[in-house]
Amino acid sequence: MRPDDANMAGSVHGGTILKMIEEAGAIISTRHCNSQSSERCVAVLARVERTDFLSPVCIGEVAHVSAEITYTSKHSVEVQVNVMSENIVTGIMKLTNKATLWYVPLSLEDVDRVLEVPPVVYSRQEQEQEGRRRYEAQKLERMGNKWRDGDIVQPVPNPEPNTVSYSQSSLIYLVGPSDCTLHGFVHGGVTMKLMDDVAGIVAARHCKTNVVTASVDAINFHDKIKKGYVITISGRMTFTSNKSMEIEVLVDADPLMDDSRKRYRAASAFFTYVSLSQEGKSLPVPQLVPETEDEKKRFEEGKGRYLQMKAKRQGTAEPQP
Amino acid sequence: MRPDDANMAGSVHGGTILKMIEEAGAIISTRHCNSQSSERCVAVLARVERTDFLSPVCIGEVAHVSAEITYTSKHSVEVQVNVMSENIVTGIMKLTNKATLWYVPLSLEDVDRVLEVPPVVYSRQEQEQEGRRRYEAQKLERMGNKWRDGDIVQPVPNPEPNTVSYSQSSLIYLVGPSDCTLHGFVHGGVTMKLMDDVAGIVAARHCKTNVVTASVDAINFHDKIKKGYVITISGRMTFTSNKSMEIEVLVDADPLMDDSRKRYRAASAFFTYVSLSQEGKSLPVPQLVPETEDEKKRFEEGKGRYLQMKAKRQGTAEPQP
Amino acid sequence: MRPDDANMAGSVHGGTILKMIEEAGAIISTRHCNSQSSERCVAVLARVERTDFLSPVCIGEVAHVSAEITYTSKHSVEVQVNVMSENIVTGIMKLTNKATLWYVPLSLEDVDRVLEVPPVVYSRQEQEQEGRRRYEAQKLERMGNKWRDGDIVQPVPNPEPNTVSYSQSSLIYLVGPSDCTLHGFVHGGVTMKLMDDVAGIVAARHCKTNVVTASVDAINFHDKIKKGYVITISGRMTFTSNKSMEIEVLVDADPLMDDSRKRYRAASAFFTYVSLSQEGKSLPVPQLVPETEDEKKRFEEGKGRYLQMKAKRQGTAEPQP
Repeated sequence: MRPDDANMAGSVHGGTILKMIEEAGAIISTRHCNSQSSERCVAVLARVERTDFLSPVCIGEVAHVSAEITYTSKHSVEVQVNVMSENIVTGIMKLTNKATLWYVPLSLEDVDRVLEVPPVVYSRQEQEQEGRRRYEAQKLERMGNKWRDGDIVQPVPNPEPNTVSYSQSSLIYLVGPSDCTLHGFVHGGVTMKLMDDVAGIVAARHCKTNVVTASVDAINFHDKIKKGYVITISGRMTFTSNKSMEIEVLVDADPLMDDSRKRYRAASAFFTYVSLSQEGKSLPVPQLVPETEDEKKRFEEGKGRYLQMKAKRQGTAEPQP
Repeated sequence: MRPDDANMAGSVHGGTILKMIEEAGAIISTRHCNSQSSERCVAVLARVERTDFLSPVCIGEVAHVSAEITYTSKHSVEVQVNVMSENIVTGIMKLTNKATLWYVPLSLEDVDRVLEVPPVVYSRQEQEQEGRRRYEAQKLERMGNKWRDGDIVQPVPNPEPNTVSYSQSSLIYLVGPSDCTLHGFVHGGVTMKLMDDVAGIVAARHCKTNVVTASVDAINFHDKIKKGYVITISGRMTFTSNKSMEIEVLVDADPLMDDSRKRYRAASAFFTYVSLSQEGKSLPVPQLVPETEDEKKRFEEGKGRYLQMKAKRQGTAEPQP
Repeated sequence: MRPDDANMAGSVHGGTILKMIEEAGAIISTRHCNSQSSERCVAVLARVERTDFLSPVCIGEVAHVSAEITYTSKHSVEVQVNVMSENIVTGIMKLTNKATLWYVPLSLEDVDRVLEVPPVVYSRQEQEQEGRRRYEAQKLERMGNKWRDGDIVQPVPNPEPNTVSYSQSSLIYLVGPSDCTLHGFVHGGVTMKLMDDVAGIVAARHCKTNVVTASVDAINFHDKIKKGYVITISGRMTFTSNKSMEIEVLVDADPLMDDSRKRYRAASAFFTYVSLSQEGKSLPVPQLVPETEDEKKRFEEGKGRYLQMKAKRQGTAEPQP
């Protein structure tokens, strides 16, 4: 991990880790999908399950990323990726992340055609059933996911501190060749890194301290983003608890030189950030002041997600409303 | 020049070239300012004179950047930088850029103290007088430069094509260690590259074709930007002629974790872009439709700069109004 | 040199310097090979001779890289590259590296065809004879080079400190567009940088201190690596003297989406690292404990190379056994 991978306090950005995770997932699933089929394909990220950042990684540490295919459906691959950080001077290793990603193989001859996935061999029979359960669960959740296509982040002149308008931020990005697969799609990890960048700026603006990613909820990739597109990544704070902030990040893609397509929502997710003192202790977060009706509604929704996650952690998960 | 330095059509971004130019200028002026003084210093970019991009550079070509100190005042250094592009396969070399930059040496012990510059030795006596004339001219122009501190780029919902609101764009950027000198200031070249990035997106949004930088007018750097600051780079189209677009780019710096300073305007400049066909021929540009009074005023000012520059090129420069 | 080019202690990675050296070599040899031939070509790195890192380069210093063609055979070019580091504040310049590289020109129309090299003009007649001797010597050595294709680095559970298994490391890397020439081959310098990265991690794991590259022995590039391939770079310690470590680095390329090719060994080399204190003094290195028969054999071979090099430095080179 190099200085550029980290924030001013030396903690590696969550986005840098998400990018590595996705790269490992893309390699292993592309390799698997090409292992038996006669038609060449590339595996494209469709979804990342909710993931927690269990411990911060620092500059100079070595990240170990390991990936394993844990389930295959007819048209998708589930990959489990673990990240360990190693301080090569003290020898201490820590688990940083456990992430689950879903990939879909697209034909290299016709990138709109989804190919079949060769079945993976399970070492225990239960694995297939457990995998199918996860597959059905994520499918259900994806379908329920409201797109909120028109909902955009609008700047407000002279906002007060602690309001949503005060910290909201947008970033435009022109997709370059290095961000893409050989076939001209943006790597899912590149998009996730930009999303985390924006979430981090929103969080730092809100609390003016050192902030780090604590978790990211499930991210669905609705549609491919291609080379040469301009993407706008917008972030706004939705909810604060005593010690955490939830930031919603929206990704819109604009096919600049392709008149046949309009601007579309490519992805969206909620990032949870915490604020840290110089010594790395978690600090209280200034309370967010929602102003408009929409902001108040989003605050309540965020509170719901927060309480549900808290309950889950305490082993007393409530049924989803 | 690598794929990442270039746009989709393979032309290297003007911003990449500006960054190289500034790097060469910073090296030669820092070296010169330390050559005699007993107190160590770093040379910081204060101003870049208007520069034209004479011919495009392509991926795979080698850029030759040469720098020379052409004048020294008591507290500033003028550097002339030339860029040549070389196609190492065909052997063809072309002049790409001639740029003039002004640097100021800051003490490494107290970065708010400007040191004295050792005098350069001129090979011809006229050089000193010509240099002094350029020095006085830029000083005058810098003082006349209106800061327009409060003027910001505000998004408008559902803008019509060809309006200013339609193509205007903003980018936020968190300044990292690799963007900075060892002493924690952003390299001027990094800022210029980001400015060109935004100008390019505005231009591409307006005309939906391949666009390249044709020229940049003088850029003044009003104040240093430090590591950890968030900068917002905003661009809006101000004027279109038949075959060119003028884009104003504003840079605002936000000392995120430094309560003692407010957000301030760090730099601003006008970029001129042209639109190119697949074969590299210049294309007509859709006429900009200014809507508000401010937009109409800026359009007329842009027209003034355009006509003046055209006259200058034809060797019939009119006196500045 | 920027923060990202360096390790935690501010010393620029040997790999960063190797990458610059290779870039200079590729430019000068491509230019030369196109200077007379009518068929366009690109010069591809075939071999780097053993090179020492004479003095460390620090962040903020300027590296001067100069390259000269010193010999041409019918199908290859020998380039001599020197690197000087300059501290532009103190004015001190130091010789950092002297490296010798061999390039081969490949036709741009058919990249499997090697073209003829235009003869270089020698200023002294002895130069041609001396060059031919170097050419024959490296040819002989290349042929003697056993590929050890099947030999791979296997992880071992719960290794003891100071064993080979304890510090061995692997890195996988997906070759992207920016790593490649316009014709889709990985730049030799990119591969060398990754090799040095892995060697540095192995060395730091073994001695848990700040480590720097002291030298690299000859690297042969057996075969081209193409865009989209996944490469695995593995490193294991082979030998330790009192104050140095030898690390063997193996590069294997995996043509992910190309069934016509199997995974193959693309390059291999030995890196020598030293351990430095905070003040930059060289520290004793923990003794390596070889366990298996292979490890013991490699230790003895490493010792042989070490003693031979030591003897060479003392001007009493023994004949190779």
